[in-house]
Amino acid sequence: MPRVSQDHLDARRRQILDGSRVCFARYGYEGATVRRLEEATGLSRGAIFHHFRDKESLFLALAEDDALRMADVVAEQGLVQVMRDLLAGGDHPADWLGTRLEVSRRLRTDPEFRARWAERSQQLTTATRLRLLRQREAGNLRDDVDVDVLTAFLELVLEGLVSHLAMGLPAAGLGPVLDLVEETVRRHRPGTGAGADRRAE
Amino acid sequence: MPRVSQDHLDARRRQILDGSRVCFARYGYEGATVRRLEEATGLSRGAIFHHFRDKESLFLALAEDDALRMADVVAEQGLVQVMRDLLAGGDHPADWLGTRLEVSRRLRTDPEFRARWAERSQQLTTATRLRLLRQREAGNLRDDVDVDVLTAFLELVLEGLVSHLAMGLPAAGLGPVLDLVEETVRRHRPGTGAGADRRAE
Repeated sequence: MPRVSQDHLDARRRQILDGSRVCFARYGYEGATVRRLEEATGLSRGAIFHHFRDKESLFLALAEDDALRMADVVAEQGLVQVMRDLLAGGDHPADWLGTRLEVSRRLRTDPEFRARWAERSQQLTTATRLRLLRQREAGNLRDDVDVDVLTAFLELVLEGLVSHLAMGLPAAGLGPVLDLVEETVRRHRPGTGAGADRRAE
Repeated sequence: MPRVSQDHLDARRRQILDGSRVCFARYGYEGATVRRLEEATGLSRGAIFHHFRDKESLFLALAEDDALRMADVVAEQGLVQVMRDLLAGGDHPADWLGTRLEVSRRLRTDPEFRARWAERSQQLTTATRLRLLRQREAGNLRDDVDVDVLTAFLELVLEGLVSHLAMGLPAAGLGPVLDLVEETVRRHRPGTGAGADRRAE
């Protein structure tokens, strides 16, 4: 019988990820010192680095975890809903935003990180693409534009939104913009006009 | 008779802006030291700071100058053309991108800069909005969505594009995405289908 059960290991890993997410969001990657990570997780550095090789590995695991959670929302509700959540600023979106901003910043400034992240960044694209393919099969998606183009369009708008919020620009008034984005990927049925069918993406 | 003519002053100012643009793009704001600015402009610090109070004022003048040049392209050809220029990566777009990235970064990290920039950042929005209003009058723009929403939509996509390029993500394949963006703001004439009228925005 193993000394430590898998459930216990999973719970400890979750505790570390949740605590460090808050810590990275507040202090940024460089500012999230080992001491602050200890405080935020309530665990010793020995316990933390038993689960993750180093700070870089911890951050990558966190970013991957967030990307998977975003991918789940995308699969259920579409990428525009992820953007609406970001605008609404509930609990989870704030999480995502912090990690996502840190990923964006490090992609810009750290070529080594860019290489390590590239392997992990496909989840969101894949989830978005699969969702769009299902919506196309269901007849909800416009069929005159390639699914890859629609996927890239939605990801570009998400990146713009993340950047917009990161720069502290006003978010009020972006709701109708997201309506327009949603309508753009939707199937236009003759005679129904804009806004007739919701949530095609 | 003045010792230094206005033409001479203007030419000197232009020389400083052009040289320091390259310098800021290459080294970033912090990395663009006074020595590097001297090298890049071919002028002494005394000459440079005769025209601009300090490095911050020089950078703001540069960012404003670039925003005005972008606004000129927007007025003539629309914001999507600005984005296509960014993708094509000619001479001027590279200029814009460097300054624009630095503005984005400092907006995220420097609240004081955010306040100073806010006064200067309206040119592009105003130019985009005016262009769209003219296009609406000419019957080229969709009339079921408010011009302010269309303006915010185009600016959000631009911000996404800047961020995308800054992160070193592949730009190939974004051409059709910009076609889709352009088509989204365009007037849809019944029976003509997607892509019937070009460059409405």
